[in-house]
Amino acid sequence: MIQPFDDTYYMKKALQEAEAAYEKQEVPIGAIIVIQDRIIARAHNLTEQLNDVTAHAEMQAITAAANFLGGKYLQNCTLYVTLEPCQMCAGALYWSQISKIVYAAKDPQRGCGVMGTKLHPKTEIVGGLLETEASDLLKRFFAERRNKN
Amino acid sequence: MIQPFDDTYYMKKALQEAEAAYEKQEVPIGAIIVIQDRIIARAHNLTEQLNDVTAHAEMQAITAAANFLGGKYLQNCTLYVTLEPCQMCAGALYWSQISKIVYAAKDPQRGCGVMGTKLHPKTEIVGGLLETEASDLLKRFFAERRNKN
Repeated sequence: MIQPFDDTYYMKKALQEAEAAYEKQEVPIGAIIVIQDRIIARAHNLTEQLNDVTAHAEMQAITAAANFLGGKYLQNCTLYVTLEPCQMCAGALYWSQISKIVYAAKDPQRGCGVMGTKLHPKTEIVGGLLETEASDLLKRFFAERRNKN
Repeated sequence: MIQPFDDTYYMKKALQEAEAAYEKQEVPIGAIIVIQDRIIARAHNLTEQLNDVTAHAEMQAITAAANFLGGKYLQNCTLYVTLEPCQMCAGALYWSQISKIVYAAKDPQRGCGVMGTKLHPKTEIVGGLLETEASDLLKRFFAERRNKN
């Protein structure tokens, strides 16, 4: 049986969000939240446009998903995000009690892993899905920015 | 010389915000951000009303202060908050590069201290100012909530 709605399918959707951020000259990171094979939130980093350090893709996705569900907890939801969440986003995910986090590229400097941020005991986290695609986009963004300066 | 604008003065303003949260049946936590003796953001916890785990007092204050300043970094700013920031809020404060954090009550369960959240190297953090007032308000809130259930 063909399964069109697998983790790779959803991560590609998150990558589309990252590309939308790239087009706006934002650090290209995208996130989506899925419940029962339905995408209930799509977001991308908007920290520059909004002049707001809290406007990470994950934060906006958490707010949008809670708004869709009508409740603040994201049990039975999965977050797909193109970069490993930072302390802030992992801290927000802790409060949300989300079931699963799937990220693409690892962030060895500021990711929640190296920073030691605690996730909720109910939350599973896996990384590395479409890592090359996500990190290539980030590398391209920073290379172009260096060339501009 | 009388100095009306000291840390205690500002923490009392944060406590007024916590009381505003209390009136709305929100966990009573308030925050303000100050630059050069001027209050540029006032906020209180709104997680219940907004159905949003990200609506902590500090998060809203960071967004409001950046909006006021027209830039996303909060250098030369001080945050006064009635409870020690959690991982999410400390993570956001990390990105903001805020100069100083003054909190009232310690959070021995979920505070950034016990959770090991990293602050920006430029950020100073001090706790315990008007601790009794802040923790009494929290205790009163949770005692009333227990009695209701």
